[in-house]
Amino acid sequence: MMNFERFDQLMLEKKYTLLKEELLNVLPADIADFISRLDEKQALIVFRLLPKGIAAAVFSYLTKEMQAMISYLVNEKELASIMADLYFDDKVDLVEEMPANVVKKILKNTSEVERKLINQFLMYPDFSAGSLMTIEFVDLKKEMLVKEALERIRKTAPDKETIYTCYVTDATRHLEGTISLKDLVLANVDKKVGDIMQKDPLFVNTHDDQEYTADLFKKYDLLAIPVVDNEQRLVGIITFDDIIDVIEEENTEDFYRMAAVQPTDEGYINASTFQLARKRILWLSILMISATLTGLIIRKFENALQSVVVLAAFIPMLMDTGGNAGSQTSTMVIRSIVLGEIEFKDMAKIVWKELRVSLLVGSTLSALNFIRLYFLERHSISISITVSFTLLLTVIISKVIGSILPLTAKKLRLDPAIMAGPLITTIVDAIVLLVYFYSASWLIGIPI
Amino acid sequence: MMNFERFDQLMLEKKYTLLKEELLNVLPADIADFISRLDEKQALIVFRLLPKGIAAAVFSYLTKEMQAMISYLVNEKELASIMADLYFDDKVDLVEEMPANVVKKILKNTSEVERKLINQFLMYPDFSAGSLMTIEFVDLKKEMLVKEALERIRKTAPDKETIYTCYVTDATRHLEGTISLKDLVLANVDKKVGDIMQKDPLFVNTHDDQEYTADLFKKYDLLAIPVVDNEQRLVGIITFDDIIDVIEEENTEDFYRMAAVQPTDEGYINASTFQLARKRILWLSILMISATLTGLIIRKFENALQSVVVLAAFIPMLMDTGGNAGSQTSTMVIRSIVLGEIEFKDMAKIVWKELRVSLLVGSTLSALNFIRLYFLERHSISISITVSFTLLLTVIISKVIGSILPLTAKKLRLDPAIMAGPLITTIVDAIVLLVYFYSASWLIGIPI
Repeated sequence: MMNFERFDQLMLEKKYTLLKEELLNVLPADIADFISRLDEKQALIVFRLLPKGIAAAVFSYLTKEMQAMISYLVNEKELASIMADLYFDDKVDLVEEMPANVVKKILKNTSEVERKLINQFLMYPDFSAGSLMTIEFVDLKKEMLVKEALERIRKTAPDKETIYTCYVTDATRHLEGTISLKDLVLANVDKKVGDIMQKDPLFVNTHDDQEYTADLFKKYDLLAIPVVDNEQRLVGIITFDDIIDVIEEENTEDFYRMAAVQPTDEGYINASTFQLARKRILWLSILMISATLTGLIIRKFENALQSVVVLAAFIPMLMDTGGNAGSQTSTMVIRSIVLGEIEFKDMAKIVWKELRVSLLVGSTLSALNFIRLYFLERHSISISITVSFTLLLTVIISKVIGSILPLTAKKLRLDPAIMAGPLITTIVDAIVLLVYFYSASWLIGIPI
Repeated sequence: MMNFERFDQLMLEKKYTLLKEELLNVLPADIADFISRLDEKQALIVFRLLPKGIAAAVFSYLTKEMQAMISYLVNEKELASIMADLYFDDKVDLVEEMPANVVKKILKNTSEVERKLINQFLMYPDFSAGSLMTIEFVDLKKEMLVKEALERIRKTAPDKETIYTCYVTDATRHLEGTISLKDLVLANVDKKVGDIMQKDPLFVNTHDDQEYTADLFKKYDLLAIPVVDNEQRLVGIITFDDIIDVIEEENTEDFYRMAAVQPTDEGYINASTFQLARKRILWLSILMISATLTGLIIRKFENALQSVVVLAAFIPMLMDTGGNAGSQTSTMVIRSIVLGEIEFKDMAKIVWKELRVSLLVGSTLSALNFIRLYFLERHSISISITVSFTLLLTVIISKVIGSILPLTAKKLRLDPAIMAGPLITTIVDAIVLLVYFYSASWLIGIPI
């Protein structure tokens, strides 16, 4: 979004002091964007221009490749200084994602206590709340006065990822309540924290799914949520900025599933040819093999087709329309399930709705199609009726199937996103062909 | 997510005092969930149990239908009290979405100044930053000392949607900087706000698109962003909780577009049969009419088909695989564009990547298919080769088209999501049939 011409110019002229000054007027995320466009040598030069406080922030916004490169090239002292300033969740991500030689160097520059903690965090399953949390939160005690709490916040704030929600724990680190900085600022300074905190706060367990965690943020408009272990001890917090990433990740997963791609960790641009192929072959093969069913149906009606070969010409149009009509419905239903608007018990209501919609849509398309076939292309009345009638049934059947399957998947605790376009199309195709040939035999009077 | 059995029991026994007490231990969003499940009369009873401070918060979480019903049924004084406690952005949404009789009652219970402001806010276009913003922010002056600023925050906090970022304006309301509560709390109380504020802060214009606004939040991990008018005067702020809704809205829009459904304001569950049909008919008709091209191609090769009628049996499988392979690629490419990972200038790199992937995927599928046709189903070698060869080309062509079209759409400033499965399938279908029949005439030696 930014224009880096000015910085490029200063780089070219080697005016590094001036470049440094101007970079400091820019946000860390933008500095990271600028560095990411440079080659290794230049990137390292610019990164080394950054003062200590900003370097770690910029580092956390860099691409994985750039992080690996810089971690590898800087000296031990520089790396130790970046590490010291990174938030703990970024540190864990780094250790998880960097190549082995870089990880070795990173761990060498962390204290033993922290090394142990990093290893513990690395054990939380992917996509769990534990894998998202950070340890830099403000913890308070019930007995503290508001003024003492504010003093503690003031002292520890520089190292905390958020100070806007604080966490009240007992002597054994059990979570007793939360209190917002807003409430602390508004309260009488001589009140006790325990008297004004929110008791029974929302929390998640380290092993809860990240999607469930994101749903809580959306529902309750949270800034942060505490994470507890199996003994209900507070072990970390998750902040809203990480949740925004989770929401986009979950959406990407749904987009992929709905297009018959197995979700991937690597993202599109970083994945290798082989990784991409592997994520696509399974579903393509399954769908290809299922499509042999349609081939069998056509072969069963080979004689009918040979006697009225023009019937073949409408097969693609019927199949495509069925697939599209089914995708429309399944997409809308899947999305409504994901957003928590509908559940399995709404099945009857949804199917009834789709029946009415498909009757409206189907008859419009059917009429359009009849006009084209009979009046414009001058096909026989029996052919025109056969195709138009099949089209109407196609739309109705595909929309009903498109609404039933995702809801059923949800009921069976499968991801509804699997029941999207590609699978629906394959199922609808077979049904469409059967309807088509039986209608033809009935309306045109060909033997089957 | 909550279990309301206990509340239902108390309702049934008419133990309202106890119910009220227990409701106060529960978050507003959950109280709203409970109320939404009740009938009109019960809902009103429970709503009236809520103390003043909580009623407005619960109200803002209710469904539109419930909000309309309650606004209609409560008396003027009650409505005025809810209105007084609602945040301004919720008030504007309410006026925008309620039926006319309710709006009249609401406006009657707002001050004239606020009525004017509401009308002004209603004029911002849908999906603009202006339509998302609220006016409850803390504004400070450069000359204030930190202790004065903190005092001002303390005094005005109860009415503000956020106090965690404050906005520094000059005498003519021009935005001069922002300062976080964290920085204020950490600073020496005798420093001047102007000396520690963030100068040149990020901002959006009232007419900027909500998607652009959301991208800024994602990139810079923002809690809130200031909104300025065309004269650069600060007119409001947007907070992260509204942005999370925007992100889900934008994703829903992409899901719809990619399934050939026109995006809708109403959502799935609230839309009428007629509205749903209207959003689907246009694209279905366009795609149906485009599919006549495939019909024309088949008719052109009618003689070939009549002489080797078994060829027809493989058309659905070839078309489906082409459609699926194309959808996989276009979905991954569209998603990468939306997430800002790739742009038009990466075209060559992406096409080259897809070429390699499609060669790998295509030859695997093609080999699988050959084994099935030649060894299992005992088709002739020429038929088996024709179908398998067409399949390989189908995968390659559909994946290349699936990568080129979304990037081209982006370049032409169209929404890349339009270039998804349905359109790609229609285009690929026609190409597949041409490849198929020409391969057949060449490999099987039938006249065309």
